[in-house]
Amino acid sequence: MTTRNLFLLPGDGIGPEAMAEVRKIIAYMNEEMAAGFTTDEGLVGGAAYDAHGAAISEADMAKALAADAVLFGAVGGPKWDSVAYEVRPEAGLLRLRKDLELFANLRPAICYPALANASSLKPELVEGLDILIVRELTGGVYFGEPKTITDLGNGQKRAIDTQVYDTYEIERISSVAFELARTRQNRVCSMEKRNVMKSGVLWNQVVTETHKAKFADVKLDHMLADAGGMQLVRAPKQFDVIVTDNLFGDMLSDVAAMLTGSLGMLPSASLGAPDAKTGKRKALYEPVHGSAPDIAGQGLANPIAMIASFAMCLRYSFNMVAESDRLEKAIANVLDKGIRTGDIMAEGCRKVGTTEMGDAILAEFKALSA
Amino acid sequence: MTTRNLFLLPGDGIGPEAMAEVRKIIAYMNEEMAAGFTTDEGLVGGAAYDAHGAAISEADMAKALAADAVLFGAVGGPKWDSVAYEVRPEAGLLRLRKDLELFANLRPAICYPALANASSLKPELVEGLDILIVRELTGGVYFGEPKTITDLGNGQKRAIDTQVYDTYEIERISSVAFELARTRQNRVCSMEKRNVMKSGVLWNQVVTETHKAKFADVKLDHMLADAGGMQLVRAPKQFDVIVTDNLFGDMLSDVAAMLTGSLGMLPSASLGAPDAKTGKRKALYEPVHGSAPDIAGQGLANPIAMIASFAMCLRYSFNMVAESDRLEKAIANVLDKGIRTGDIMAEGCRKVGTTEMGDAILAEFKALSA
Ligand SMILES: [Mg+2]
Ligand SMILES: [Mg+2]
Repeated sequence: MTTRNLFLLPGDGIGPEAMAEVRKIIAYMNEEMAAGFTTDEGLVGGAAYDAHGAAISEADMAKALAADAVLFGAVGGPKWDSVAYEVRPEAGLLRLRKDLELFANLRPAICYPALANASSLKPELVEGLDILIVRELTGGVYFGEPKTITDLGNGQKRAIDTQVYDTYEIERISSVAFELARTRQNRVCSMEKRNVMKSGVLWNQVVTETHKAKFADVKLDHMLADAGGMQLVRAPKQFDVIVTDNLFGDMLSDVAAMLTGSLGMLPSASLGAPDAKTGKRKALYEPVHGSAPDIAGQGLANPIAMIASFAMCLRYSFNMVAESDRLEKAIANVLDKGIRTGDIMAEGCRKVGTTEMGDAILAEFKALSA
Repeated sequence: MTTRNLFLLPGDGIGPEAMAEVRKIIAYMNEEMAAGFTTDEGLVGGAAYDAHGAAISEADMAKALAADAVLFGAVGGPKWDSVAYEVRPEAGLLRLRKDLELFANLRPAICYPALANASSLKPELVEGLDILIVRELTGGVYFGEPKTITDLGNGQKRAIDTQVYDTYEIERISSVAFELARTRQNRVCSMEKRNVMKSGVLWNQVVTETHKAKFADVKLDHMLADAGGMQLVRAPKQFDVIVTDNLFGDMLSDVAAMLTGSLGMLPSASLGAPDAKTGKRKALYEPVHGSAPDIAGQGLANPIAMIASFAMCLRYSFNMVAESDRLEKAIANVLDKGIRTGDIMAEGCRKVGTTEMGDAILAEFKALSA
């Protein structure tokens, strides 16, 4: 029997509540589908800081490196606002991304039909929206050195962050974008600031060369990143796959997510390079939302993004495409039935808590799998 | 009689057409109001490259430095897409910003009542919108050194851009934001990425200290820049003044502009420090829109952003507040009457060209000044 090793890192805030609903789905798939998932669980973020004084322990890092896939909840909260920069909750996620070499962050911006009215945009602009933002995740200004604050004396300090990109980094992220585009509408839009950044100039060159050498069948456009932000707000459906660097991807993927009106419901995947022997990619799946400390522990959290992240895990780490499709369909059906957590509550719908939402999706998943 | 020295840089594309409409208003103000404007004109962008092989000549730089205010049109176009990086059209604008030390970029995002339906957002979210984004303009990743592309051999290149901020840069831009907030709703939201950037950490500290020391009466909030992008899309009216760095300001001010549905109509101002002797700030005023080469020279361009930029010039460089108010009111009145250029045309309105739009605004301005 196949074994599939999952490492769960629920993290802080609503992370553990949301992860509990995924555990139910895993248990069902093991019992009824002989899916062969094994799970181990660790600490990350504030929870790891409280236990180990670090945002993730070395032992848990080793487990993450050994797993087929990592499911990550959320990190952070006011409790840890004043801890040292190096051990702040986000450092756990950054360490995972760096050590697992998860250079490709996949951020779908999909508008569930039942929620089109929840968008701040006019419904006709977002109904049926289906964008995939591919964000470079291990390079750029969040990691480049030097990265310092220096006291200059005379009351002045100087802060430095360094944006660095090498050819191979741009080549591999754009290759992921082109490959994914082939399974979709076959269109890629690359975004940078070549007019004011040297990294933008190189980005543009390497994407253009990679396209020409290996992906000439895909339609490629280039857009300045600030113009891209505007176009996302003006007419988001013009895009299929967007590929961009770490910082612009951070901004643009959040703007795109908010367009859908269902930010709390969006999943993400972070992928590494294929292993030379096994062909398997290191992978981490996480909801886009944060740890929402204000509602943590109250059974109010919406578990859909966490469950949808597990659906991405089924698809990208285990090639369980049919199961992934059914789980995503289960989410859409539950929303069509008017079942809502508080964050997406609307008139005429039925308000439920975290557990009820998870149970409803599991029931629908069972029905679709029968 | 007061003399007021304006240096006009119409630039490329639709810049010259839009500037011609401002010239009419200047002439009227000189004739009927003894405003005492003197004007000189130079080249910038592609036009300067064609004439001098540089994005702006040294002679024109000297005139810009000597003027009370610079009115700038737009630069760029496909004709200059392949010129060397150092002399590309945008380099002219960057040089002006740097040499005039225009560190504060003011980007109003205002929704004209007559155009609320033109936004991609639901009208109730943008009606009455009035945000001012204050963007740091001479520091950060667009200017920091090193800024290089290096050939590493083995087929690899490395691109580097450097984000640098010193205490004094953050102090002076946040002071401008706090001062402007006092003339508005008295609220400032500062945006950075302190969770992943050292410059974000310093930015947050210095804004907090500047607030405490000199502007404690202003309400101050902090937001991560990507969350800020989301909030702009979700509920833009929550903001009054937003202060942020060069790169985040580049992205966020464009997203905010697009929310208004009237991107082609938004002005901007870029201000320097007050002169120690005269108290006058160096200043440059420019429309937010680009050079629109596709419609250049056809009399189709919307001159409103250029005229609204001149209204900001009256307000900030010459303290002609009543005249500025009247000119802005003239624009709103013309829109209320249903007069539209092609870019903002709507059913039941009357479509006009650049000249007619400029004439209509001037007529309204005359009527209001009578
Ligand atoms: Mg983000
Ligand atoms: Mg911009």
